[in-house]
Amino acid sequence: MSLFTTSYTVEWGDCDEAGIVFYPNYFYWLDCTFQRLLRGCGLGQRQLQARFGAVTPLVDVGLKFRAPARYDDVLSVSATVSDWQERRFRIAYRLTCGETLIAEGHELRAWAVLSDAGIRGAAVPDEFRSMLG
Amino acid sequence: MSLFTTSYTVEWGDCDEAGIVFYPNYFYWLDCTFQRLLRGCGLGQRQLQARFGAVTPLVDVGLKFRAPARYDDVLSVSATVSDWQERRFRIAYRLTCGETLIAEGHELRAWAVLSDAGIRGAAVPDEFRSMLG
Amino acid sequence: MSLFTTSYTVEWGDCDEAGIVFYPNYFYWLDCTFQRLLRGCGLGQRQLQARFGAVTPLVDVGLKFRAPARYDDVLSVSATVSDWQERRFRIAYRLTCGETLIAEGHELRAWAVLSDAGIRGAAVPDEFRSMLG
Amino acid sequence: MSLFTTSYTVEWGDCDEAGIVFYPNYFYWLDCTFQRLLRGCGLGQRQLQARFGAVTPLVDVGLKFRAPARYDDVLSVSATVSDWQERRFRIAYRLTCGETLIAEGHELRAWAVLSDAGIRGAAVPDEFRSMLG
Repeated sequence: MSLFTTSYTVEWGDCDEAGIVFYPNYFYWLDCTFQRLLRGCGLGQRQLQARFGAVTPLVDVGLKFRAPARYDDVLSVSATVSDWQERRFRIAYRLTCGETLIAEGHELRAWAVLSDAGIRGAAVPDEFRSMLG
Repeated sequence: MSLFTTSYTVEWGDCDEAGIVFYPNYFYWLDCTFQRLLRGCGLGQRQLQARFGAVTPLVDVGLKFRAPARYDDVLSVSATVSDWQERRFRIAYRLTCGETLIAEGHELRAWAVLSDAGIRGAAVPDEFRSMLG
Repeated sequence: MSLFTTSYTVEWGDCDEAGIVFYPNYFYWLDCTFQRLLRGCGLGQRQLQARFGAVTPLVDVGLKFRAPARYDDVLSVSATVSDWQERRFRIAYRLTCGETLIAEGHELRAWAVLSDAGIRGAAVPDEFRSMLG
Repeated sequence: MSLFTTSYTVEWGDCDEAGIVFYPNYFYWLDCTFQRLLRGCGLGQRQLQARFGAVTPLVDVGLKFRAPARYDDVLSVSATVSDWQERRFRIAYRLTCGETLIAEGHELRAWAVLSDAGIRGAAVPDEFRSMLG
């Protein structure tokens, strides 16, 4: 899959008293990046549900922090689907500020379809895979 | 209406680089306080919708800040419905830390019922008013 | 003062279960807009402290909500200093989504200088006022 | 180390449009739990800096999600230091709602001392280790 890149400016309220990003905010940016990646393929949450009747719940997430980011820093976040499994897919993330690597991580997401009986895991459709390809 | 009181500890991530609470967090606490007040009357969001088919959208909100709050401070928030109008009600909030007044403010909320045609304003039912009384 | 305008996309995590923006997030955007307005005048928080030894604590804030905003909406936020007082200034905000007015509000901020003895209110310098002019 | 346990009520604003917790909030609760664990040992951030001149920056964090949590759920979070290394320590977290396992994860934190020259990694003092023991 091609690399999707987006960016965020670290705002005043994103930092803690030590002057560095309060870490849960990084996950807000990961989630936003995934949403933007989907949108960029014509698949916002609305389209995903209309077209596939599906959602992509998070199974596992992790981040390794390499350097702190501070107010006014512009974070560039790149994302790519690094692994397609039958019912899951893994997105690899890399956050940089200029030349500095800030953090690296991943999200593992499941494919789940909505029905009257609730929500259940299912195989990732080829169509979805090729749209993200 | 009687006075409802709850409290929050200011956590590390709630503060900004200046070491004081990043102000949008105060509104998270106001909203939580309103939800806790409702719950305390047996009316969480689920019960509110099941019993009245209603929600209480925010119309107007404001806060005046009197003193900063910092990490580890325990904020006591009191709330009371200070004004009942036909289709709206006003909640008055007061935030203190020990003897120090931190902030004072209000939320003005509408009564709105859900139907297939959407959501529309309606008169606040006496039953709701007496449950909060 | 001239009108400053910036925009935000409503992200998935900004909305609540009712599918509308969870309201404390609006205040995050107000604060960000003020910071961006300052930055646009060459006055990020770092420059403000280096040049004036000052901060601009919030005294009073309020918002009136006119229409809900939802996931994927692009909010345009305009800001202007609507009132200069000796020691305070008021910023007027207007949030729109396309032609729809979403919310209107204000922040009242004080001018405060930092010294070894702490922080104290002071007259807004003409230089600051003209930089924002 | 003994097991530290605390709890959080899932508030309305913590959930997304799908009615489940927006996942970055889980990390806010992890961080709060670590802070509460420290406080419970008499070591809030203030005491940590006063006594040891140290902070505990995050190196690596991860969570595996087992079941969704929703508005009004009471999350019980348990934490224990599961591994002491020379310059780092790992905290294991387990989040449950009643009998249901919601998520499991960890934080890996470094020991870092503050000096005029900046911040640098250092060996975790025995005193800290025994205070948490």
